[in-house]
Order: sequence, then structure tokens, then C-alpha cells
Amino acid sequence: MMRHYVSDGVENKELDATSLPSSEGQRENPHSVHKVGFPPRRNFFREFKDVLKETLFADDPLRPYKDQTRSRKLILGLQFLFPILEWGREYNFSKLKGDIIAGLTIASLCIPQDIGYAKLANMDPQYGLYSSFVPPLVYAVMGSSRDIAIGPVAVVSLLLGTLLQNELDPVTEKEEYIRLAFTATFFAGITQAALGFLRLGFLIEFLSHAAVVGFMGGAAVTIALQQLKGFLGIRDFTKNSDIISVMKSVWGSAFHGWNWQTILIGSAFLAFLLCAKYIGKKNKRLFWVPAIAPLISVVLSTFLVYVTHAENHGVQIVKHIEKGINASSVRKIYLTGSYAKKGLRIGLVTGMVALTEAVAIGRTFAAAKDYQLDGNKEMVALGTMNVIGSMTSCYVATGSFSRSAVNCMAGCQTAVSNMVMSVVVLLTLELITPLFKYTPNAILASIIISAVVGLIDYEVAFLIWKVDRLDFVACMGAFLGVVFVSVEIGLLIAVSISIAKILLQVTRPRTALLGNLPGTTIYRNIEQYPEATKVPGVLIVRVDSAIYFTNSNYVKERILRWLRDEEEQLEAKQLPRIDFLIVEMSPVTDIDTSGIHALEELHKSLQKHDVQLVLANPGPVVIDKLRLAKFTGLIGDDKIFLTVGEAVMICAPKAREDA
Amino acid sequence: MMRHYVSDGVENKELDATSLPSSEGQRENPHSVHKVGFPPRRNFFREFKDVLKETLFADDPLRPYKDQTRSRKLILGLQFLFPILEWGREYNFSKLKGDIIAGLTIASLCIPQDIGYAKLANMDPQYGLYSSFVPPLVYAVMGSSRDIAIGPVAVVSLLLGTLLQNELDPVTEKEEYIRLAFTATFFAGITQAALGFLRLGFLIEFLSHAAVVGFMGGAAVTIALQQLKGFLGIRDFTKNSDIISVMKSVWGSAFHGWNWQTILIGSAFLAFLLCAKYIGKKNKRLFWVPAIAPLISVVLSTFLVYVTHAENHGVQIVKHIEKGINASSVRKIYLTGSYAKKGLRIGLVTGMVALTEAVAIGRTFAAAKDYQLDGNKEMVALGTMNVIGSMTSCYVATGSFSRSAVNCMAGCQTAVSNMVMSVVVLLTLELITPLFKYTPNAILASIIISAVVGLIDYEVAFLIWKVDRLDFVACMGAFLGVVFVSVEIGLLIAVSISIAKILLQVTRPRTALLGNLPGTTIYRNIEQYPEATKVPGVLIVRVDSAIYFTNSNYVKERILRWLRDEEEQLEAKQLPRIDFLIVEMSPVTDIDTSGIHALEELHKSLQKHDVQLVLANPGPVVIDKLRLAKFTGLIGDDKIFLTVGEAVMICAPKAREDA
Repeated sequence: MMRHYVSDGVENKELDATSLPSSEGQRENPHSVHKVGFPPRRNFFREFKDVLKETLFADDPLRPYKDQTRSRKLILGLQFLFPILEWGREYNFSKLKGDIIAGLTIASLCIPQDIGYAKLANMDPQYGLYSSFVPPLVYAVMGSSRDIAIGPVAVVSLLLGTLLQNELDPVTEKEEYIRLAFTATFFAGITQAALGFLRLGFLIEFLSHAAVVGFMGGAAVTIALQQLKGFLGIRDFTKNSDIISVMKSVWGSAFHGWNWQTILIGSAFLAFLLCAKYIGKKNKRLFWVPAIAPLISVVLSTFLVYVTHAENHGVQIVKHIEKGINASSVRKIYLTGSYAKKGLRIGLVTGMVALTEAVAIGRTFAAAKDYQLDGNKEMVALGTMNVIGSMTSCYVATGSFSRSAVNCMAGCQTAVSNMVMSVVVLLTLELITPLFKYTPNAILASIIISAVVGLIDYEVAFLIWKVDRLDFVACMGAFLGVVFVSVEIGLLIAVSISIAKILLQVTRPRTALLGNLPGTTIYRNIEQYPEATKVPGVLIVRVDSAIYFTNSNYVKERILRWLRDEEEQLEAKQLPRIDFLIVEMSPVTDIDTSGIHALEELHKSLQKHDVQLVLANPGPVVIDKLRLAKFTGLIGDDKIFLTVGEAVMICAPKAREDA
Repeated sequence: MMRHYVSDGVENKELDATSLPSSEGQRENPHSVHKVGFPPRRNFFREFKDVLKETLFADDPLRPYKDQTRSRKLILGLQFLFPILEWGREYNFSKLKGDIIAGLTIASLCIPQDIGYAKLANMDPQYGLYSSFVPPLVYAVMGSSRDIAIGPVAVVSLLLGTLLQNELDPVTEKEEYIRLAFTATFFAGITQAALGFLRLGFLIEFLSHAAVVGFMGGAAVTIALQQLKGFLGIRDFTKNSDIISVMKSVWGSAFHGWNWQTILIGSAFLAFLLCAKYIGKKNKRLFWVPAIAPLISVVLSTFLVYVTHAENHGVQIVKHIEKGINASSVRKIYLTGSYAKKGLRIGLVTGMVALTEAVAIGRTFAAAKDYQLDGNKEMVALGTMNVIGSMTSCYVATGSFSRSAVNCMAGCQTAVSNMVMSVVVLLTLELITPLFKYTPNAILASIIISAVVGLIDYEVAFLIWKVDRLDFVACMGAFLGVVFVSVEIGLLIAVSISIAKILLQVTRPRTALLGNLPGTTIYRNIEQYPEATKVPGVLIVRVDSAIYFTNSNYVKERILRWLRDEEEQLEAKQLPRIDFLIVEMSPVTDIDTSGIHALEELHKSLQKHDVQLVLANPGPVVIDKLRLAKFTGLIGDDKIFLTVGEAVMICAPKAREDA
């Protein structure tokens, strides 16, 4: 007998098990084995509170308020709502320098983009600029990301435009269209703020990464295709966004609708923009080249059109941008009637998509610079920003990935860079909008194309293909849905596949046969460890999931199938039959009443076959529920072990010896 | 050094780890530790096929066809479709005897029930009898359950009646109402057969056991409340099924609408029926008492009314049941137009509910008598039965729990008992329906009340409350939804809570801190095993779920929170800081790209805090994906261990020694 030491009255059984071959194998006395621990019973309200807390307050937002005086709590609360009060106190000149440079850089990038994105939303160009003026100011006061650049973005503009267009015609019903846009923006903001306030931010996680990659890629392709109108100078263009309609539109007008002057200007500047992008990518220090290239293109091309009077040769120009800052639009929001309902629906969808983008950007940069970001708080900030935006003639704004990246590379320190950008936009609106009159639409198209190219993340798509094929199906489903049908359908596909994937994985959990790693008491999946050997007379099955109503029947029948397969094999080889079925419960993190019912049925079926059911290492929740449901009594407390090793040792000491 | 033995070149490391205290602790060489196994890489199509097979063909239906000749395959195929060909060959006289007795017993039970249930569906009484004639015959040929008793059931009748009533008035639009009922039955059958044929039977598992218990209980209460009309002899009764409307209706007519003769007959026979039920429950051998009690009640009360002419004193009677067997209703089914769409929707819902009930019954009895039941095949049988039923003037039939139990107790051997019942119903329709003319409605109400009382399973509800509080919320939600609003809303609540529960559990998985069980190399949850001790300098966290996009951020942040909490405690106690964070991956059964991304971010954050990330026992799928995503290279192959014990031994040999 090789018992090494005994501590705290608990014997070192795991050790004994491996040393069995050299012992006499008379250690069947179950009392010397470790007992499976029963957790202390918690009452209902405590349990409910814990679940609620873990679900809604996983990030423990009240932590800093612990053990503070009341006035300190008030200050902390204000700082929580307005982070500017916190970081503003440590603001200094060197930070300001960084923020001003970054702010100027993103302003030069955002002005031409805004004008183009407003067109995606079927709105006049000034609305794009409006949305880059008010929302960034609000965010700077309430948001906690230091790097995000706020404003209109391509995908949300396209989505909003598509959804609004389904309800109203942007040309003939212009006034109602704009009002519905503000209504949708208002409800998008309410949705975002409500999600954050109710701490339901985790809902946006239901859109899987893969689905987002596919959706974004598809949206980028769709947006680029839409730009063919401006890029080729086509006047009669389809209202549909799917690739087939657009291609028909493009080829249909190939001989009489294309304008070569437009194409020339467009191509030349697109080449310039892509070159600038390439330079910025090759040499990170030249990040400002692609950042100011769009503004340079606009200035150059506007000047060119102005001197050559190309607008008389079929080159379409912006013509008119309203001068002056945002007017109030409080009274334009529909709060009752059918348009309010439609606005709510559109706002809900665009608000969620905008949120997904902003939170993803915020998280990425927070992880890169290692600061904490409270997702729910961010949502409240973004929501408030859009509610205020909707009252000041802005449409849905969110974080732009490309501009945030430029912001970060240009050395932004705080959200002050957004304020700087906002001031530049203000000056633009007040002073120089008339100068945009001669800007050719083709340039805006080129700028948008060069901007959305970056959204097609084929490298990540390839990685997804390599790592997880089901994820790739979700990714491609979303992509093809957007490209071939419409943005909404693509989004719907993305969400459906994401949720279906979860449900499928819960319904058909993996199970594995375990074998003994030679010379140890460790039992592992025999597929992963081919050297692992089966123990004669014992079948060890691991269930790799919580057992719930969705999978309880499957789990039961899968285990019986493992047993049937094994017994057939043993019979064919004339080996001794199975006497014990050990279910390794380590990965079974939870069980519900259906799951317990399935275990009872499994036990009943096994009894009919003279096989004893044995459980190894049930977790705290599981053992508690099994006890409450009297299942432990049914199979016997001595049939529940701490490890598979101990279960094998007790159930089949002879077998262990022979092995 | 206490190395015991070396086998197959793999050293007994687990053993060495525990014996470290007595060794010199110089075993940091990672090459002597077990390697984590990498499974062989499978190609995409193989993998996809496996997932598909496990999802749709989990029960391996093609197994018997392996290695068979073509003619044998044909015979097996026919036997698969028509199980009667299989069991029919072994049918004998002794089985017939059992089936005849059982068939007669359930026939006597079903005839009065059918007449009552037809009323729940707002249809004439003969339709209930029709539905007990054709469907059982079809099922007997195609079904594989030996115990299920087919026919109309209370809950499905009520659900169908409620849904149809929303579309058409059963009195003023009688003809269309009946046609829509057949249409719904047709599509219910199509739905059921399609689910089975496409092997999507697992979809019905999404209705959790707890939700079904609540739904059934609520439906029973609603049905009983509806019976107050017949029971109290009220003529003006509400069309709504919620408890508040019904109670208003009942009290509103308390002084002028109640009929004392009706109440007298109803109460007397209800008492008789409940007594019979009680006797049957107390003494299992007297099961036939409650089984024939309804028929006796009908005969007695009909005779009583006939001789006393109580129908002239306000006692409502059945008046008329159409004589003769089912007419064809093929041409009555709407296949185009808006009614076809409505029928499809209603059929889908009732078909799914009927399926849930029938499959649950089939499984229960199959488990009790230990025979296999193919859920998908059952669905095809039930679906075909309802399609044929819809063409022969039947409405949705399914398995009745109470009649199946009686069937089983009466000694049924095969589905022949259903045929016997069917023949008795046929004779009833042909010969004795006119005799039902004087049957008082109050008796039918009493029979229905005494039948549905059994659906209120308060014992199971109490068990659910004890075992799983969230399940109980689902149960009560469904119950209250049905009782206070309507059957559809209750069903919707049941499904929503069931799915929300899955999603919630996937979004917020459990995590646990592990400690070392003294004197072993076993690491377990310190909440479950208070004797487990933490290892200085090492934090061991177990993640109890696959890491997917829904929970990847949560898991990352929860692990960081464990670390932060631990570090605060250590700092307060001036203990050495954490150097290694070991993540026990045993329960992490799968990971997707978002999950890997979260691990990468976790690694980055830990690096900033000078903490080394270590993984223990990743499963085959996980290690494969981590390798493909180059994560193993990022943290280092030598930071991935087979067990927590080995990880601790290598990472913190000093700590182990001190402990």
C-alpha cells in the first residue's frame, strides 16, 4: 500500500488509484473515496438576484460607490453620466495639441464623406454635415471612448435610406420623408438609450461577429454599386439596391446614359484616392495622406469643373448646399399616427445596427489602448446624442470605423478631437458651403467607393472559413443576402443564422467516449487522444453541454446509442459485456427538469439492460438539483464520484488491474 | 523522486505532481508533461456531413439497412413506413384478447368525451366521433407506439376552436367555419408530416417541459371554466376564454340565468365521476371504474331526462347528432385564397401543439415498456392521419394522455386496440346516435371537467419550483397567460420564455474559481468544495460553457473581474501577487471566431498586467480552432496543459511546495 500522506482527513485517492496495479486491489470500500460536494442551499430571492445581477450588471457598475460618502457618491454619479467631468480635470496643453491635429484631420475626411453619405440616405447634402456637428459635441460630453469619431456612416445611411424609401418617396414626398427620417433618428436614439439604461446592452451580442463581417461586406458592395450612378453619370437609375437590378440599370444605359467626362474625372480621382490609401497602409506615419486626399480631391475637382464649365457637358454637380447651421426639428418628429409607428420600427433597426458598429469600434480601441469601456453607458451616450440630433435636423450618427482609425493614428487623446471636428464642420456650414456648388457628384462617388472598400474584410472572412465553417455560412448568408436581395433581408439573415446557430448548438451537444491515458488516472476523449485505452466492462461517456429541455432527449438517446454500438463491437469480438456506464458530468454545467427526467429514463433503460449508471463530478448546480429531484437517491449516493478515475476504481477494480 | 512506473513512454506526471512535496521541485522541464492532443483535421464536407447527420439523423434510421440485399431493403422500407407489417406477423390470439378489452374500455371513455370536445371546437357533436373513427385506423397502420389512444383531445379542440373563432363565427358562418376547420386540420397534418419527413422533429423540443406543464394546466382551467356554461345552464355566455370575462358572465347571470335542475344533474354526476376517478387512482386494478363511469353517466342521465322530460324545465340537451359515418370533405378544404392562408397558420399552430402532446405520450409509454420510438416516423404517421382525417370530415386528432393511460392499464398489446375503438365508434355512429338526443349538456360538461382536472399537474409544478426557479417562471408565465389572456397568448409566452431561457443561459455562462483539494492534484470549484485551497501566485478560473459570440465579451470581462477581485484581496492582505491565470477549458466544448478574439484580448490585457495566460485541457474542437487561428502560437504551445494539476506544477512549482 502506497499511501503517501493524509491531510485534513481526506485521503489521496487519486494517487491510490494509479498505484492500484501494485496494490492488492481490495479498496472497494466506497467510504474512503472523496465525496462530491453539495453547495450550500441558497434561497429563491438570493438566487434570482444573483442571476439578475450577472445578467444585467455583469460589469459591476456600482463598485466605485461602495463605502463612499453621500457627496462623493453624487460627484461619482455625475462623473459617471458625464465622463468629461472626470478626464476634463486632467486635461492639459499637450493633450490639446494632439486633439487639435486629430480633430482637423478627421474633419477634412468627414466633410466630403458626409455630403456623400447624405445622398445614400436620400437626403440633401447639408444633413450629412449637420449630423457631424451636433452629435459629436453631445458624445464628447457623455461618451467614454477616447478614440471614436462620431458622425454619419455609410452602412447606417444606406440602411436608413432603404427603409425610409420603402415608406415614402424621397423626391415627391420630400417633406414627409425628412420628417420620417428625424422620427426614425429620434426612436433610434430612444432605443439605444433604453437598451443602455435597462442594461440590456448584451442583446447586441446576438449579432455574431461572422454575421457582422458578412453584413458589412455586403453593404460595402451595395454602396459601391450605388455609386455607379454618380460615377458613370447615369440619370435614370434603379431604386433597388440588389446587384441584379443595379447591373441591369448600368448596362441598360451603357450606350446613351454614360457620360465620359464624368467617368474621366471620377476614375482619375478614384485612382488618386486609392493610391493615397495604399501609401497610408504601407507607411503608417503617412496616415494623413489618405485622410486629407478626399478634401484635396474635392477642392481640385470643384476648381476644375468651375473653370471648364463641365456642368454644361453633362457632368452632374452638387448644385446647392443650404448655408447655415442646423435648424431645430423638434416639431418635425412624428409622435402619433402611422408615421410614428413606422419611424419606431425603422429607428429600432437602424439604432441597433448603429449601436453594434459604435460599440465594436469603442471596444476595439479600448482594448488597444487598455482602458475600460462600459458598454451600457456608451449606449446611453449614443442614444442621448441621437435624440438630441433628431431635434436639430440630424439623422442617425454613430462611430465611423475608418475615421476613428485616422483619429487614433493622428494622435487623439480625448473626445476633444470630436469637438474640434465639430467646430470645423460648423465653420464649413457657416462660411464655405456655397463653394461646394460646383463639386461633381462623381468625386463624391469616388470618395465613398474608396471609403467602403475597407469594409470588405476578406482576410477575416478567410480566417472564419478556416476556423469555423458554420460561422462562414452565417457570414456568406448575410453577405449574399445584402448583395442579392436588400440590406434588410441581409440583416434578417444575419440575425436568424446567428440565433439558429446558438439554438442548434444547444440542441445537439457533443458527446465523447473517454479512455484512460496510459499510466495515469486521467480520462480523455479517445478521438483526441488515440493512445487512451477503454476500460473493460465500463463505458465512459462525457456530455459536453448543460442538459436542458432542448437536448435532454437527444443526450439520453445518444448515450444509449454509444452503449449499443459498443456492445455490438464487444459481442463481435466476444469480449466481456459492459456492466457500468459512467457519465462524466464535468462539462454539464446545468440541468433542468427535462434533463433530470431524461436521466431518470436513461437509468430505467440501463436497468433493463443490467447496466449500472454512474455519475462522475457533477457540478454544484447539477448535484443540488439532482438531490432536490431525488435522483441521487434513485441511483444511489455511492454511484456518484468526484472523478472518473475514482468511479472506475470502485466500479471495476478488477478491470483496472487487468488493464 | 517517486516515479512509480513508466508505460508507453508517457510518464505518470499526475502522480509526480502530488508527490512533489517530497521531491526536490526541479521538474520545470515542460517536455516531460503530457501533450494536449490535436485531433486529426477533417475536411469541410466531412465535417458538414457529420453536423447534418447528428442534427437530423441522430437516431441513425438507416442502420438496419446496412449490408442488406435490395429486396430485403424494400421489405424493411415498407415495414418502416407501415410498422403493422412488422408486428402484424407476430400477432396472436392472446394479444388480440388484450387489445379487444383495452379497445372496448377506451371506446366507452372516448364516445362521451368526443361529443364534449367537439363543442370546445365549436363544432357539432358528430365531428368529435368522426375524428375518433378514421384517424385511429390510419395510425394503427402507420404508427409505432403500442399504447397511444388516438382521437380528439381537450386542449387541441379548445385551441382550434379559439383560433377558428377569431376568423369566423361558428353560428352565423357555420359552413365556412367547418370548411376552415378541415383546412386547418389538413395543414396541421401537412406540417406534422413535413417536420417528420424533413427530420426536423427536434423543433418540438423547443417547447420546454416546464412551459408545457404550465400551458396544459392553464388550458385545463380555461376548459373547465368554459364548461360552466353547460354546467350551470347559462344561455348567454361570453365568447372570450379568459377567466375575467368568464367570471363576469357567470356572476352576471347568477340570478336569472342559472338553472337549478341542470346544476343538480351536473353536480350529482360530477361527484360520481370524481369518485370513480379517486377509486381508480387508489386501486390500480379498478382502473376500469373511471373508464366506464362517463358512459354510465351518459346512459343514466339520458334515461333520466327522457322519463322526466327535464328538457322542458330548462335543462339543455344535445338534441341532435347526425347519424351515419363521415362524409368525404375533400372538396371542403380551401387550397387557395385568404382562407387557405388562415387555415395554414391555424394548422401550423394546432399541428405543433398536437404533435408535442402525441410525441410526449408516445415517449412516456415507450420508456415505461422499453421499446424504441422514432420521433420523426411518428410525426409522419400522425401527419398522414390528420391529412386523411381532414378529407373525411375529421378535425385535428392526436394522442390523448388520459385515454392512453387507460389503454395501457387495460392491457393493450398493439395499435389493434385503436382499431377496436374505431369499430365501436363506427357502430355508435351507424346505430345509436339518435339515442343521444336527450343527453343533457351538463353531463358532457361534467365529463370534460373530470377529464381535464388531471391536466393540472400541481405536483410537477411544485417539483419544478423546488428544482429550477427560472423553469418555474416559464411554467407560471404560460399558465397565467392562458388563464388570464387567451390560449394563443399563453402558447406564445411559453415558447418565448423557453427560447429566451436558452439564449440567456448561452449569454451568461457560469464561471468558477478552482482550488486544490488537499492532498490531491484535483482542482474543483471552491464554492462547492470549501476545503479546496487556492494556490499562491496562481488564479484558476473555469469557464462553464462553449465560448461563442453571445458570451465571448462577458467571459473575457468576467475573468478579468475575478482577477481584479483577487488582486484587491491579496493586496489588502499583503500577499504575493498573481503571476499566472490558468483557464480550465474542460467545459469549453466549442469556440467560434468571436470567442478566439476575446481570448486574444484577454491575453493582451493580461500581458499589460504582467500576468501569464495558461490554458488547461482544451477539447479537440477548441484546440484545433485555436491552432488554426494561431492563438496557440501567440501564448506559446508550452502554456497549454493537459490538466490544471500539470499547469500548476509547471507554472508555480514553488507555490506547490509552499502550499
